[in-house]
Amino acid sequence: MGRPRTALLDRERITTTALGLLDAQGEFSVPQIARRLGVQTGSVYHHVDGRDGIVELVRERISEAIDTAPLDARPWDVALAGWARSYRAAFAAHPRAIPLLMTYPVRAPRVLEQYERAAALLMEEGFATADVMRVITGLENVVLGSALDLAAPEAMWEITDASATPRLAEALDAVRGDRADQAFELALEGVLDAARRLPA
Amino acid sequence: MGRPRTALLDRERITTTALGLLDAQGEFSVPQIARRLGVQTGSVYHHVDGRDGIVELVRERISEAIDTAPLDARPWDVALAGWARSYRAAFAAHPRAIPLLMTYPVRAPRVLEQYERAAALLMEEGFATADVMRVITGLENVVLGSALDLAAPEAMWEITDASATPRLAEALDAVRGDRADQAFELALEGVLDAARRLPA
Repeated sequence: MGRPRTALLDRERITTTALGLLDAQGEFSVPQIARRLGVQTGSVYHHVDGRDGIVELVRERISEAIDTAPLDARPWDVALAGWARSYRAAFAAHPRAIPLLMTYPVRAPRVLEQYERAAALLMEEGFATADVMRVITGLENVVLGSALDLAAPEAMWEITDASATPRLAEALDAVRGDRADQAFELALEGVLDAARRLPA
Repeated sequence: MGRPRTALLDRERITTTALGLLDAQGEFSVPQIARRLGVQTGSVYHHVDGRDGIVELVRERISEAIDTAPLDARPWDVALAGWARSYRAAFAAHPRAIPLLMTYPVRAPRVLEQYERAAALLMEEGFATADVMRVITGLENVVLGSALDLAAPEAMWEITDASATPRLAEALDAVRGDRADQAFELALEGVLDAARRLPA
């Protein structure tokens, strides 16, 4: 059993190291991963399908934290809202990985499976096939924009001269509770409602 | 006039260099900027208010590309939609700068001025003061999530085994035109509509 176990372990360690580098610096390189693991760069490539393969392992790792059970709920909007909330929380834990993951095509089978379930849900509901990706992507715009916002400081606007921006100062003073959560729920409800109004 | 001109020029060059590094690697350091400009790190600090100051110069540079004229349009939803479209285009040109800018508080006066105008617009319209930042932030979630999506490959989901994800394959085949633009417009309309339904 030695060989497969070791390979599996190494993929786990490579993934953990890549994610750690992404969290710290928003980027990773294969030589950096090799240095951290105390191995040759070539050894890393024995375990993964190139740099792209590592990106997919990271995507899979972050996506494991998404609770997909809501996708079994009905009606469809409750299902999508539950998925979106969990999806946002999973990516908010790794905001600096978001740009890289968004610029690499999704190939990880367990991640594609989540999209499959979301697409099936919308088709069963009678959405036009041509609108399915529009709804899913619109939802993701909100989820990922808000996941980044969760990494923002609570005092995101620093006004030193309130006389220059009095209305902004007033609006900021009036915020009660969590600005990021309130904005996310507003935008989420908005996207779902825009989807409801699409022609079947 | 020599001294102010030179200082101004240097701030411009520092900003351009920082933005170039952000575009290439999603990060910058002051020593890296100094090396590229062929000066000592300390010389860079003579011209800017620390690393935070450089982040604000970059924010101002990217934000200069936002057309704020739509904020003078009425009704308010047409004004916000026009601003959001231009805001998205400006940041889509620099997707890798987005996470850094979202995790530093906004201090640049010319950027705060844009928020001031958006806040004033919503208050004039009769929005509850406590809802103003909720609407603006919800709009930004969509704008920045979609700006990142514009940096994504057109074929964002690579399915090698269509039998594993048949509904996703079908939905992807049915996409006509620009997926990113269609999703953005759906989400934008959704947020504006959610805002319309807030109690005054």
